[in-house]
Amino acid sequence: MRKEKLEELAHYQEDYRIINEEEVVEEKKTPFLTTTSRRYLLANGKTLVREKLWKKGMNGDAVIIVPVTLDGEMVMTIEPRVHTKEGVGIGFPAGYIEKGETPIIAAKRELQEETGYQGREFTLLGGCYQDEGCSSAYNSIVLAKGCLKVSEQMLDKDEFVHYFICRVDEAYEMLDNGIIKGANSQLALEKAKQYLKV
Amino acid sequence: MRKEKLEELAHYQEDYRIINEEEVVEEKKTPFLTTTSRRYLLANGKTLVREKLWKKGMNGDAVIIVPVTLDGEMVMTIEPRVHTKEGVGIGFPAGYIEKGETPIIAAKRELQEETGYQGREFTLLGGCYQDEGCSSAYNSIVLAKGCLKVSEQMLDKDEFVHYFICRVDEAYEMLDNGIIKGANSQLALEKAKQYLKV
Repeated sequence: MRKEKLEELAHYQEDYRIINEEEVVEEKKTPFLTTTSRRYLLANGKTLVREKLWKKGMNGDAVIIVPVTLDGEMVMTIEPRVHTKEGVGIGFPAGYIEKGETPIIAAKRELQEETGYQGREFTLLGGCYQDEGCSSAYNSIVLAKGCLKVSEQMLDKDEFVHYFICRVDEAYEMLDNGIIKGANSQLALEKAKQYLKV
Repeated sequence: MRKEKLEELAHYQEDYRIINEEEVVEEKKTPFLTTTSRRYLLANGKTLVREKLWKKGMNGDAVIIVPVTLDGEMVMTIEPRVHTKEGVGIGFPAGYIEKGETPIIAAKRELQEETGYQGREFTLLGGCYQDEGCSSAYNSIVLAKGCLKVSEQMLDKDEFVHYFICRVDEAYEMLDNGIIKGANSQLALEKAKQYLKV
């Protein structure tokens, strides 16, 4: 990994360092995370009860984009990940698939919103259930080739994303040495490997 | 994939087919899934509120085991996955890490509980956050070599697991053709690849 890239990462990580936190009890009248519980009867005659996690009342299907620029570099993202030990996560542009969107349509929208890049060629690489024991969320992984910066980021007011350009081999270095820690980003790199010169 | 193995899978899938389901409202006084909400102040002066998912009041750290027998075959699992379109999921033995356990200790316990197999050589292959946007759950992936059947399964009363022996190449075939759909199982196979003759 180039020294200047490590310094850039450290700068973004410092930006999102948590300096205080407090419980919020009353503020959220419409929570993002909700749960339901159902009892199932199986063909073998057994019953089981399982709880399900909902995100904004939906399954939480999402898309993860692996963007590669015209110059063959990767567009990664750095976000506050307040639940993790590190507090900050390095990964890929990603977001929920909105009603009526295909994974590719959602990938184009999320890529531009989070990074300001547009891609020329989008390929669906596969998908996976995020957490099949307690959720229906299905994530699609999309490779975006020929990406070019066309606009500023378009972030929601409580969304914080730095984008970060690095070489393809540097991204895989961060996978191998454990810097990239999210399941989605790790799987995205694994699935993209055969399409990239690594 | 061998025809008899496909038939075996179909048999297990039929066993766990959902034939009825109903909402459960009152039964669970102590829900498995709970959430909290916190406000964070970042070093850059911005604040954000994030909800967190808890599993049984804990982070939900888990271990996923890739068991390979003395004969070089894989020990996989089939479980009801009521939240998925398929209703049944094919993957690997896995479970929550209990208080005081290391990932390897938990791997040994879960492997025997879910399959009745014991392993000779356990290797931590890496790990990932399950869903870093809303959870602290960190999953460790463990390769278990030299596995041998030593006992019956030891399952909780609402836990349903069939174990399934197949060749290593058949497991990777199920990864490639999309039969294995859970993020954890997919990632486990990717991380184990370099340790197995595939």
